[in-house]
Amino acid sequence: MLDQTQLPQREAYIETRDYREVCTAIRRLSVRGAPLIGIAAAYGLALAEAAGVDLATAAAELASTRPTAVNLRWATNRVLASATGGSRGDGATPALAEARAIHEEQIAADMRMCEAGAALLAEIREAAQVRGALRVVTHCNTGALATGGIGTALGVILTAHRRGIVRDVLVDETRPLLQGARLTAWELERAGVRYRVIVDSAAAGLMARGEVDAIVVGADRIAANGDVANKVGTYGLALAARAHGVPFIVVAPTSTIGQVTPDGARIEIEERAEDEVLQLGGRRTAAPAARALNPAFDVTPAALVTAIVTERGVVRPPYDEAIAALGALSPSGTAMAGAPS
Amino acid sequence: MLDQTQLPQREAYIETRDYREVCTAIRRLSVRGAPLIGIAAAYGLALAEAAGVDLATAAAELASTRPTAVNLRWATNRVLASATGGSRGDGATPALAEARAIHEEQIAADMRMCEAGAALLAEIREAAQVRGALRVVTHCNTGALATGGIGTALGVILTAHRRGIVRDVLVDETRPLLQGARLTAWELERAGVRYRVIVDSAAAGLMARGEVDAIVVGADRIAANGDVANKVGTYGLALAARAHGVPFIVVAPTSTIGQVTPDGARIEIEERAEDEVLQLGGRRTAAPAARALNPAFDVTPAALVTAIVTERGVVRPPYDEAIAALGALSPSGTAMAGAPS
Repeated sequence: MLDQTQLPQREAYIETRDYREVCTAIRRLSVRGAPLIGIAAAYGLALAEAAGVDLATAAAELASTRPTAVNLRWATNRVLASATGGSRGDGATPALAEARAIHEEQIAADMRMCEAGAALLAEIREAAQVRGALRVVTHCNTGALATGGIGTALGVILTAHRRGIVRDVLVDETRPLLQGARLTAWELERAGVRYRVIVDSAAAGLMARGEVDAIVVGADRIAANGDVANKVGTYGLALAARAHGVPFIVVAPTSTIGQVTPDGARIEIEERAEDEVLQLGGRRTAAPAARALNPAFDVTPAALVTAIVTERGVVRPPYDEAIAALGALSPSGTAMAGAPS
Repeated sequence: MLDQTQLPQREAYIETRDYREVCTAIRRLSVRGAPLIGIAAAYGLALAEAAGVDLATAAAELASTRPTAVNLRWATNRVLASATGGSRGDGATPALAEARAIHEEQIAADMRMCEAGAALLAEIREAAQVRGALRVVTHCNTGALATGGIGTALGVILTAHRRGIVRDVLVDETRPLLQGARLTAWELERAGVRYRVIVDSAAAGLMARGEVDAIVVGADRIAANGDVANKVGTYGLALAARAHGVPFIVVAPTSTIGQVTPDGARIEIEERAEDEVLQLGGRRTAAPAARALNPAFDVTPAALVTAIVTERGVVRPPYDEAIAALGALSPSGTAMAGAPS
């Protein structure tokens, strides 16, 4: 696993055969991004299987590393279910085969989301009669580093940029851990996209100045009514977008949708360590005795979301019906049932 | 001058007889806070006078250091006008005497704002039937470090806390320069107030969770219609406050009110160096080639402001009339004409 805490200074990899090190890597955000931690947890279970560890125990441990993202549980449940099915034709153990399937499906899902999202942005540009191409704001990191594929929200932005639909990206630095300034900037740089980093609180004022045409973000969990849990700061962006008539687009695979979570109020919000806020790179930045409160996520009510782009297409309000319809396509509750495996 | 860029790590002072070093100190935020930079600029002109420098030239240079705050120009104009008046009875040169008057008036103004603001918070507590005392959010630093007196917004919070009206303070860290985490936390710590630092983008989600009873902030400039320019991030706070019915209180001396600025759209927003966003404590945190956009302020429309606390009392909507009435009290356009000098 690429250790993302060391980016952009260093490209260092974590190699392990121990699923508990996968737990640690997820907990300390060496591996992060809702889709990618699902994949990492699935491979973690494959390691546990190879080591002869009880899979239910390992699955519970992996699933508990981050409480908000629903992909973790979705992925470990899939691997657990498959592991009772015996070995596959390709010689891989059941858990490893299922982890590979999840990974491959995510790659395919990203590509479908990027197509659908780029088409949606083209539509937005047309409706808003924007001259030239769109100026978009994104939050946190939702690119290849976050998904194992080509990305969700950032994948959409990159795809739309290649097609001339997006021209400029404003990147929220994303405090406390600066995933925007460190990771999204790094990905946009490599892709040759024009972008500028802003402090998270600057986006609202820039919308007021008419400098933003759309917001494109990912999701850590989407409730059955369309409420979206995502990196802290997303909700404030959505409020400002609404105040200025700026479309607010969420891009996330259906594995992010918690069909059993009725609404955002039921989503557990992870509280992370105070030091993430009070220190930077191990150096104290706040006053010596200061304490912090560090909710890692917030919930954006469905009413503020213009559309949700999934690998099965674009979902629009009313979300409860549209999301229930997605579920009906897949009675097992497992997303992407028809994808290659 | 206390060099605030070194707080909370070090209490270092800048001593100078050269007004140009005062310009530098204001520009690099060694001295900051709208009221305090007015005082510093006034003393800077006294240094220029003592050194025999042309006062109009020095005043223009001092006034240009920060474009958004209106106190700078207000203070240099006052000193310039007084300097033609000849020496005063106390033997001080005219510019020095006027600088001292501005400083003493600010101390008195802070005390009046703290009284009026604490009374307003008591009223808010009663109206909202909050059990116990209020939980407030503040942004940036508006305490003794920002004003030369006991503070504006933070002075109100401290006064209300001493009277049992406020119990908990959530301190926006205030990126990019962390005035909240560094300076406000330091002041609250010394005052024995319970507080926690949060990343700026967390406030909206905490309001949604019902954990905030009021927002109290300062202002760098207030337009004649009540639009408020303040540290970047203030506008987003105000939008979230409105969405959750949380009172949004601005505390600022009348010297902050630009009677000749009709509305927020005419307020020049200072763009500061990209490195403030891309570095932290001189260390690069963003991706190596990343660029940044760094607006230092934003504008909160008057419609989102519940009340403005000044040293002449609490101003409420409609602001255009209330602010014009403040001006009528002082036909010269100079605030606090009746204050001790």
